[in-house]
Amino acid sequence: MSEQVKYLLGEDRIPKAWYNIVADLPEPPPPPLHPGTGKPIGPDDLAPIFPMAVIEQEVSTERWIEIPEPVREIYKLWRPSPLIRARQLERALDTPAKIFFKYEGVSPAGSHKPNTSVAQAYYNKQEGVKRLTTETGAGQWGSSLAFAGSLFDLEVEVYMVKVSYHQKPYRRALMETYGARCIASPSSLTASGRAILEKSPDSTGSLGIAISEAVEMAVQRDDTKYALGSVLNHVLLHQTVIGEEAMLQMADADVEPDVVIGCAGGGSNFAGIAFPYLREKLAGRSHARIVAVEPTSCPTMTKGRYAYDYGDTGHLTPLVKMYTLGASFVPPGFHAGGLRYHGMSPLVSHVLHLGLIEPKAYAQTDCFAAAVQFARSEGIVPAPESSHAVKAAIDEALRCKAEGKAETILFCLSGHGHFDMQAYIDYFAGKLKDVPFDHSALESALAELPMVAE
Amino acid sequence: MSEQVKYLLGEDRIPKAWYNIVADLPEPPPPPLHPGTGKPIGPDDLAPIFPMAVIEQEVSTERWIEIPEPVREIYKLWRPSPLIRARQLERALDTPAKIFFKYEGVSPAGSHKPNTSVAQAYYNKQEGVKRLTTETGAGQWGSSLAFAGSLFDLEVEVYMVKVSYHQKPYRRALMETYGARCIASPSSLTASGRAILEKSPDSTGSLGIAISEAVEMAVQRDDTKYALGSVLNHVLLHQTVIGEEAMLQMADADVEPDVVIGCAGGGSNFAGIAFPYLREKLAGRSHARIVAVEPTSCPTMTKGRYAYDYGDTGHLTPLVKMYTLGASFVPPGFHAGGLRYHGMSPLVSHVLHLGLIEPKAYAQTDCFAAAVQFARSEGIVPAPESSHAVKAAIDEALRCKAEGKAETILFCLSGHGHFDMQAYIDYFAGKLKDVPFDHSALESALAELPMVAE
Repeated sequence: MSEQVKYLLGEDRIPKAWYNIVADLPEPPPPPLHPGTGKPIGPDDLAPIFPMAVIEQEVSTERWIEIPEPVREIYKLWRPSPLIRARQLERALDTPAKIFFKYEGVSPAGSHKPNTSVAQAYYNKQEGVKRLTTETGAGQWGSSLAFAGSLFDLEVEVYMVKVSYHQKPYRRALMETYGARCIASPSSLTASGRAILEKSPDSTGSLGIAISEAVEMAVQRDDTKYALGSVLNHVLLHQTVIGEEAMLQMADADVEPDVVIGCAGGGSNFAGIAFPYLREKLAGRSHARIVAVEPTSCPTMTKGRYAYDYGDTGHLTPLVKMYTLGASFVPPGFHAGGLRYHGMSPLVSHVLHLGLIEPKAYAQTDCFAAAVQFARSEGIVPAPESSHAVKAAIDEALRCKAEGKAETILFCLSGHGHFDMQAYIDYFAGKLKDVPFDHSALESALAELPMVAE
Repeated sequence: MSEQVKYLLGEDRIPKAWYNIVADLPEPPPPPLHPGTGKPIGPDDLAPIFPMAVIEQEVSTERWIEIPEPVREIYKLWRPSPLIRARQLERALDTPAKIFFKYEGVSPAGSHKPNTSVAQAYYNKQEGVKRLTTETGAGQWGSSLAFAGSLFDLEVEVYMVKVSYHQKPYRRALMETYGARCIASPSSLTASGRAILEKSPDSTGSLGIAISEAVEMAVQRDDTKYALGSVLNHVLLHQTVIGEEAMLQMADADVEPDVVIGCAGGGSNFAGIAFPYLREKLAGRSHARIVAVEPTSCPTMTKGRYAYDYGDTGHLTPLVKMYTLGASFVPPGFHAGGLRYHGMSPLVSHVLHLGLIEPKAYAQTDCFAAAVQFARSEGIVPAPESSHAVKAAIDEALRCKAEGKAETILFCLSGHGHFDMQAYIDYFAGKLKDVPFDHSALESALAELPMVAE
């Protein structure tokens, strides 16, 4: 009865450095290419939108990158995040497996996103930037950057996909509480927004359009930069505090994971928990299977192609090599907005291509069923994105039961679902449908992939 | 720069007993009276609605009451809750004061309420109860009992004030995610609900009506009991884990509070943080001022009368001596639903009457302004109820600044506002008004107080 449930760490054990997996990969990831010239892009190409310190991290091959003291100071507001043993869930499943989860929902914005928003806000502030622009879909990223901006006294302007802006007034209110300005995208503030509105006055927006608007505003003014919440190397880098802490906590619990699980949309929380373990695995110090979970509605890793593609629908971003469904692929409506991206982080794609991780896809209704079981056992209502990792963990635990194996499962619970309760309402009302995957839409989108001579 | 921010405790330091202040009071609190006979009620009068273990706690004069091991086991899901030093807020206020807060929003339901819901569910389960009924206004209590019910496999039926039921679909969804049944009150399921609906088919409900429905359903069936989320002695008792933990954490931080603050509606989170410190104060081991904060719209402690009154509008409950605005007093609409109670816990009222604590009232717009400043400094968006404690803490810190005193302030942040963002939306939209207090309504309600020969 009195087994330990939570594994906490003192603030002195917040990692002092982020881990850069590029230093340890058996081969380097393919470079991003300039969309015009097809040549590898350099730091100068990124300078109009990112501060130099961030660009250096984006291209760095150093293994460890020091976390600035003011960032660690802010991390203390919620880090180290708890590692929790899901004893009640284990009992409910009657499994011999031990289930641990690293809970990132304790952050002020309710997800792992502030791990990078605070770092990005800090570097921008250091370089004299006054204003940050970004896009947000579900709102996790926008509220995290708004929070970071409030701490470093930076103006934050969030272009929120119009349909979410209206469907998720609470997320919007959270951003405004942190002092950010939240704008429904497409807006009339930008040329790209006006162009869309001229053609489709009733456009409900898309992440691609919102990115274009945010980037356009950042490029226009010298005091303004752009911040991205996933996909890029520096974002994944900042998230590695998740895995580094988890490793210390698993040691405190005197266990080693047999399987490490994260959900993957852009790939940042997955990389955050997985890359430190991947380092150990590459060095022969861990045997853990590493599983990345995605929705069957947007099955980038399980049905996409590993190819050079644009990061946005507007074709403004560099070409990156990644698992992609094609930039023009539009996933059907489903509730995990954070997993609705046509591509996958180039670094996560690279390690998947190298066979170092396992991809897995689940239907959303199965994920919600798992999330409800989790909530009734552990009390925490998972974000729809995180429910994919919960489902995978439960499946692994049931496999252990069937095989009579007492394995140790570790997953990242990347956020809570307090701002996503409409999804649960729809789930209980039977309104969520798992539509069959549209293979012909995928074929069309893949046919439009840019031609790149490699 | 590297000063400690969070003070955490290992699970082994979750208190092993709840603290019962009745054992240490200079005089005993006046007894509750039977509404029919006017005589002190006994345990038998409460047996139809509460399990015997809870009734024993309600009337106990023992100083320490052991926390059952299964309850401590569940507490581990979120307890010990963190004590956090509000360094960013101190800097923003430029105050010499040290500000600490005990954060109860880390619980699964997002507030301090599960401290008692888990205990109550446990005792009911022990005595063979199958089903619990309760009422909820803002939804904090209903979701906390729903959470506890899911862990002990008890059916939970929540009568939710109809206006909240429709205004707060996310709270309702949370209860349903935990497996509870949530019913808009007044309902046609009960005689009391039907009586109201016959007279006023469009009734938006009230806490008083919802209590009547929940109690009626509990009395009707042998396998069903009723659970209350504040006001009564046993509820306050369960909340003392807050103050007992805070005391250990303040010792770890090597500070003693000069002032201890809690918001007070029914009085339970206030008592939770305050009663352990009051014990120390009565024993001469603490000099802390103890401040209970309420809204100016429902100023029970600052404008009410200390008198015997009913706990509900339907006059079904025992008569208790408390600071009250009169059971028929209807506070104007304001957003801190948890503070909309016409009375105050008899135990809190008693220590206030003895001059052992200080009452303080604030207008809601001032509280929201304080909450926004807090969110922009510390990242956490307070529940509207908790914002009253935030406002009082900021006021004390500013007093310290004016007086040049480096005092130590401790307050209880009883919950987060994730499910209350509509209040913030209304605040930013300028829709919140502080209506002048209606003294004549108070006079009328006080004139209706029952005549009790003391």
